[in-house]
Amino acid sequence: MPIDPNAALEITAFEWVPPFAQGLVRDLRPRWACEELGLAYKVRLISALERPEWYFCDQPFGQVPFVRDGEVGVFESGATLIHIAEKANALHPVGTQERAKVFSWLLAAFNSVEPYVMELANVAVFSRKEDWAQQRRPSLVETLNGRLSRLETALGDSRWLAGDFSIADIAMITILRGLADPAILPGHAALAAYVDRGMARPAFQRALEAQLAPFPEHDPKQQKEGV
Amino acid sequence: MPIDPNAALEITAFEWVPPFAQGLVRDLRPRWACEELGLAYKVRLISALERPEWYFCDQPFGQVPFVRDGEVGVFESGATLIHIAEKANALHPVGTQERAKVFSWLLAAFNSVEPYVMELANVAVFSRKEDWAQQRRPSLVETLNGRLSRLETALGDSRWLAGDFSIADIAMITILRGLADPAILPGHAALAAYVDRGMARPAFQRALEAQLAPFPEHDPKQQKEGV
Repeated sequence: MPIDPNAALEITAFEWVPPFAQGLVRDLRPRWACEELGLAYKVRLISALERPEWYFCDQPFGQVPFVRDGEVGVFESGATLIHIAEKANALHPVGTQERAKVFSWLLAAFNSVEPYVMELANVAVFSRKEDWAQQRRPSLVETLNGRLSRLETALGDSRWLAGDFSIADIAMITILRGLADPAILPGHAALAAYVDRGMARPAFQRALEAQLAPFPEHDPKQQKEGV
Repeated sequence: MPIDPNAALEITAFEWVPPFAQGLVRDLRPRWACEELGLAYKVRLISALERPEWYFCDQPFGQVPFVRDGEVGVFESGATLIHIAEKANALHPVGTQERAKVFSWLLAAFNSVEPYVMELANVAVFSRKEDWAQQRRPSLVETLNGRLSRLETALGDSRWLAGDFSIADIAMITILRGLADPAILPGHAALAAYVDRGMARPAFQRALEAQLAPFPEHDPKQQKEGV
């Protein structure tokens, strides 16, 4: 399925983002989870360039995604993944090692890997013209490579991080995929293969297409030109 | 209670860390949660300076805490908080707004606030002698202050982030407390009061004392001097 205007679950996403961010915005994560788990969702689009002030009542930092599911509102993509997995009854029972692994890797993705990926995006894209960014880059890449080597060792010969494919993989793969510097991931062949494996899943492809779909008609350049 | 050598739940912590990190190591989080929820725990100490290679099988990045609870192993402090709250049956039922708020703020603490606090610690402490660190500092402080202002607005007049005191507060308060630059938190009076409120809880004080307790006898300087 899953985009359905009558769905209970609504994902807030951006109507358009600049080309370098297209396909990388974090609403990809709950979209992918819904696609994997067969949960229908609808979409609410907001402007990334002029975030409406009312949106900060839903999402305190103005980020996407925000998920509304009936009376329940959830922000932070990691929390939306937990909500969706629980709604679909796709988590192992409380107190099991399988569940603990999913949560451990989910949090590792968001707290031990993504912070360095985000700062690398800052250094390589947003702040690339600053002197400090070029100076900071080597030590940041070194730290990130160290983390990725440890991650590669932990993954070993496994296909996924925590047994069967899980929300932890959705988190980690969308993070690794966002690595701004293309020279980094190829240095970790097993992780590159892991990311490819995730991106080959039909649910990922559907989620990606759904994120990209509204961008052309909301492209500010096209709108100016009246195209 | 809760330190009990016969407890099922074991928290791995460092036997000693340098003074600037004492009281700020992340095993404080599961210790605090156990104290709040009345769960007994025991402690396994490892060296922070020479992390044993076997430990990376438990914790892929060599960080603390790691929690062992019978057959279950959990890493990442955020995941240990979830495990402990679930063990104590201290989370609201699946599908409720209360539960969604706890998870939203827990993930916000680890992914939208702590990354900037960690990088500020890097800039202000670990890399303070690097030219780039001094140049990076103003924009980093600006970003962090922006996040803190939004957080302050979201907290409003509430005592805690998600209704009753929860693991989300344990995460956020231990993060805000770790702000390396003392000039930052006082600029957000409501957050400073929130942190003080958390640190005034007896469970926090017990957890802090328990973290600090083993440091003197494992201080490398004292050991060299045979004190």
